[in-house]
Amino acid sequence: MARASSLSGFPEWLPDGRVVETYVLDSLRRTFELHGFAGVETRAVEPLSQLLRKGETSKEVYLLRRLQEDPDDVASEDPDKQLGLHFDLTVPFARYVLEHAGQLTFPFKRYQIQKVWRGERPQDGRFREFTQADIDVVGADTLPFHYEVELPLVMAEALAALPIPPVRISVNNRKVAQGFYEAIGLEDVESALRVIDKLDKIGPEAVAVALEEEAGATPQQAAHALALASISGVDAAVADQVLALGARSALLDEGLGELVALLEAAEDLAPGTVVADLKIARGLDYYTGSVYETTLIGHENLGSICSGGRYDSLASDGKRTYPGVGLSIGVSRLLARVLGDDLARATRPVPTAVLVAVTDEEHRRASDRVARTLRARGIPTDVAPTAAKFGKQIRYADRRGIPFVWFPGEGADEVKDIRSGEQVPADAATWTPPQADLWPRVVAPVPAERR
Amino acid sequence: MARASSLSGFPEWLPDGRVVETYVLDSLRRTFELHGFAGVETRAVEPLSQLLRKGETSKEVYLLRRLQEDPDDVASEDPDKQLGLHFDLTVPFARYVLEHAGQLTFPFKRYQIQKVWRGERPQDGRFREFTQADIDVVGADTLPFHYEVELPLVMAEALAALPIPPVRISVNNRKVAQGFYEAIGLEDVESALRVIDKLDKIGPEAVAVALEEEAGATPQQAAHALALASISGVDAAVADQVLALGARSALLDEGLGELVALLEAAEDLAPGTVVADLKIARGLDYYTGSVYETTLIGHENLGSICSGGRYDSLASDGKRTYPGVGLSIGVSRLLARVLGDDLARATRPVPTAVLVAVTDEEHRRASDRVARTLRARGIPTDVAPTAAKFGKQIRYADRRGIPFVWFPGEGADEVKDIRSGEQVPADAATWTPPQADLWPRVVAPVPAERR
Repeated sequence: MARASSLSGFPEWLPDGRVVETYVLDSLRRTFELHGFAGVETRAVEPLSQLLRKGETSKEVYLLRRLQEDPDDVASEDPDKQLGLHFDLTVPFARYVLEHAGQLTFPFKRYQIQKVWRGERPQDGRFREFTQADIDVVGADTLPFHYEVELPLVMAEALAALPIPPVRISVNNRKVAQGFYEAIGLEDVESALRVIDKLDKIGPEAVAVALEEEAGATPQQAAHALALASISGVDAAVADQVLALGARSALLDEGLGELVALLEAAEDLAPGTVVADLKIARGLDYYTGSVYETTLIGHENLGSICSGGRYDSLASDGKRTYPGVGLSIGVSRLLARVLGDDLARATRPVPTAVLVAVTDEEHRRASDRVARTLRARGIPTDVAPTAAKFGKQIRYADRRGIPFVWFPGEGADEVKDIRSGEQVPADAATWTPPQADLWPRVVAPVPAERR
Repeated sequence: MARASSLSGFPEWLPDGRVVETYVLDSLRRTFELHGFAGVETRAVEPLSQLLRKGETSKEVYLLRRLQEDPDDVASEDPDKQLGLHFDLTVPFARYVLEHAGQLTFPFKRYQIQKVWRGERPQDGRFREFTQADIDVVGADTLPFHYEVELPLVMAEALAALPIPPVRISVNNRKVAQGFYEAIGLEDVESALRVIDKLDKIGPEAVAVALEEEAGATPQQAAHALALASISGVDAAVADQVLALGARSALLDEGLGELVALLEAAEDLAPGTVVADLKIARGLDYYTGSVYETTLIGHENLGSICSGGRYDSLASDGKRTYPGVGLSIGVSRLLARVLGDDLARATRPVPTAVLVAVTDEEHRRASDRVARTLRARGIPTDVAPTAAKFGKQIRYADRRGIPFVWFPGEGADEVKDIRSGEQVPADAATWTPPQADLWPRVVAPVPAERR
């Protein structure tokens, strides 16, 4: 028979953890929908040719083959026919936009919450299956800048509604880096950004050497690039610091204008959340305007839990180009931290608020009728599995965290709060549990010393 | 760039279809939770050795390999290490129960709503990716019969809450068939059931021949088996008809007792929904008690949309056995019919109830503030993408089915119902749309002649 064996990289929660996960997903969905994002779900698979558009991720793809498939089948070699599991939600969304462009209205705002898979080597200890929650706005040919301000603020609101510590959203702008590098004559922008990206890891001296060796920078250009990367701040002073370095270009001015507009709107709507950090370079080879990374305060070692940016061409069909801006939350990684560090927990692992006791099996139907009445009034209700002694039926409720046990009587029912022991007469047609007990809630755990 | 290409067998909905799907999934979840079922989600993959436990489905498995995997890697041959996508939710749930048995409480009631994958040949036109919604109750070593009555009635309630025609749940009981066959001396029960399963397809004469040839039946035994299979009904008269055939055994009596108990409870709680149909044989080689199939009235050609039954050993670890009873809804197949036949539709494809117009880009922040106030009060709100002429902004709302457009003014905002054209003064801190307009709803389409 089935043996039990966990698979590393494929997280799975017990029912109480799943209550927390469901709460998180429901909360994200509600924030996204309040902002007018339409829900989209795409198939789990794409042709390999789609998945390989971004070459550097090809190593992470899981390919599919049918168990009974002829190994010589053409499909196993043709990248247009070979199927793989999607490794993010951006590639399938780009394909969805092109496939359904005629039936969508632009700008198109969508959220998408789904599993993705990455064929990591098992020994890396990374998730191989995890849930992402993405929002994107996509335009047809054009997309106004203001969405680059709005989308990170939607995510700030979505994350603030979760049972997690506050977040810091760090932002940069491709135009600032590119405009600055071009102004100082550093022409190999992509290489320079790749080197700057290692700043936290290898330090400024090694970065200066690498800028000269790998990006063809002079010592003075390297020093300027490092000076730019050292700038951070929460308001227009950031732009002043950049301009004080002396370089000027139209692209730099445009980028600084966008960066400051984002900071000022953020200070108005989500004060203290958004910080400009000009050393952020990840994704700047792909993004063309704003770029975002998000850390959980006190859990910086988790890395970015929500990243994204602006891309001038999310997709293109040769006739039209679809620019977009979007961010993606790594829900599973976040949830693993929440559950692993006990940052939040469910008040109970079952939906049930009331267990209806069964006096004896001949009267089970009477208990079923009580349960039906309570459910019809929106109260999640279970019926005892056997007509055991009431003490055993109460233990069934207690072990599941069910707060109330209902005792059907001859014309006079009673309901017991098994936490306080209080038992009172009750009518299934009118009795209602306290709102806080109706459904499981997600709460911060009580500190040990206050228990 | 990305080419658009649909993949046969991998259904994907436009935003308005996704609204209907989300409504259906939310509704199912609510019914299951009102009945005390805890939500479980399992990983998408299982070791091939798990997936092959039911040998006859092996042809449907999608196997995974990493794109960069060494083809000579042992994992590609070892069925304990080779991973495949689950093709149902029962196999992963059985594994979950064994893996986490020490942390679960039994009887354990869980619902599970997830995608499953089957490696069907593309030309078969079947779904290769689809969503199932399962409920199961699993006991440790024992599981009372009354769950065989309750679970199909939970599904009847869940299906009745969906925007679909009424359903008929057809039931049979393995003990009735086996007890009857044994009583008449037909020993090869499995073969007999396999032949009876073809009754609708090949007719009684061919079945009689096959019973003799494949199940070793005498002509008289074959006639009796056909007589049993011809019986159907909604009450205890079914048992009388079976007993009138003359065969008796303890197992047959037990099975008839269970079947009648199920019919009587159903007549009380979901009148007209459950029918005993003694020719049902599908799954009787696997199930050990009640077995269920569900058809959508008027859409019988869709086949069973919700099937299941009782199994005495869902899982076993050598020390304990876990009996269970459960049913599974084929959500995607149902939804494809609902959308394809226009049985229900969304009132709009976006969550948005209100579009806040933008007077000019300098005043965008004022429109954002109105939107923020409305959202904080639970009203899904979008802001116009550009400060175009108001006529164009109203068309933006109209094309998305957004019912209200909000015009911020100097101290005096107004809101327009773009369906009626009525425009009234409004305050974002107090104005509320009609409940019916707050969120998209799923409704039966208005017949053409009444539009």
